[in-house]
Amino acid sequence: MAGKVQARRAALRDALIQHAEQRIETDGLKNLRARDLAKDAGCALGAIYNVFGDLNDLVLAVNARSFHALGAQVAEALADAPQDATEQLIVMSHAYHRFAAENFNTWRALFDIERPAGQAAPDWYLQEMGQLFAYIDAPLSVLFPDHDAEKRALLTKALFSSVHGIVLLGLDEASAGVPAAQLDEMISLILSHLAS
Amino acid sequence: MAGKVQARRAALRDALIQHAEQRIETDGLKNLRARDLAKDAGCALGAIYNVFGDLNDLVLAVNARSFHALGAQVAEALADAPQDATEQLIVMSHAYHRFAAENFNTWRALFDIERPAGQAAPDWYLQEMGQLFAYIDAPLSVLFPDHDAEKRALLTKALFSSVHGIVLLGLDEASAGVPAAQLDEMISLILSHLAS
Repeated sequence: MAGKVQARRAALRDALIQHAEQRIETDGLKNLRARDLAKDAGCALGAIYNVFGDLNDLVLAVNARSFHALGAQVAEALADAPQDATEQLIVMSHAYHRFAAENFNTWRALFDIERPAGQAAPDWYLQEMGQLFAYIDAPLSVLFPDHDAEKRALLTKALFSSVHGIVLLGLDEASAGVPAAQLDEMISLILSHLAS
Repeated sequence: MAGKVQARRAALRDALIQHAEQRIETDGLKNLRARDLAKDAGCALGAIYNVFGDLNDLVLAVNARSFHALGAQVAEALADAPQDATEQLIVMSHAYHRFAAENFNTWRALFDIERPAGQAAPDWYLQEMGQLFAYIDAPLSVLFPDHDAEKRALLTKALFSSVHGIVLLGLDEASAGVPAAQLDEMISLILSHLAS
């Protein structure tokens, strides 16, 4: 009996993650409602909170999948990239732009999720981020052989944040942003200056 | 009589902007409620919509003030900056960081305001942004004398977005960001590479 209950619980967990992902991608994180998800999954509202502590925990699970998908897309782009370190940074950044454009709302949810003030991000989040950052670190160690690991880690975060900012304001239709058609060109320009 | 009505309306407008600014800075844009503002201003809920078309229009008016304050802070920093173009970019970016840190929620509201899809930002927003961008354009024309105005405008937006991204992820306590203590250092590093 316990096995059956656990299996049902696991199935509901998967279903809720999939429904939440779809709703986030379609309507955005801020329009996510537990009531809608209960309807989607054909379960009682309370059943959601048996599986996830709160809606935020469910969004974290969706974000874990998004981080995986993002990492896979970056890795795939990197596999076809030239050996040149600057080119590798550019190829990864363009892949980041593509992922953000094609999965806009789930990408935004990675950063828009509520974090209780002062609370560190969960370990899986740090691990997924760490994987992305390892991709950036490799070409940086070629470009800046004199930087120690700590300085490279800072530069990695600064570079990631720069590209994130260009993509964010560009895709957001904010007038402060680079027009979408020139996003990749400007990312390439900034990154090629870095290595010069 | 008409003059009295207009004066009262203008006074209510100013009061609502000030109350909204305080509430945004204290509680964040997403917790702004018309009901609370009516209480703050001692007016009926409907009176707000006599002055502003909707709550978004009121937030736009708050953002106009924030843009002014931001521009003034950047201009002040620039007045004390050395003649060196790269140093000027760095000084302005540090001023941007300072403004964002000291006015976190009103700064976030500049970018988090709802924009109906496909609708361009209002003219005053573009003008305020244009003023900020003019500050950036000046040193860029020294650093890159061969770029035409169009290319400089693109580079200006890309640079602004880069610095914005570093500040945003850094202040947001997102683990992807540069730690707050190293924000200025990393901004300086990225910008000094640009000019090299």
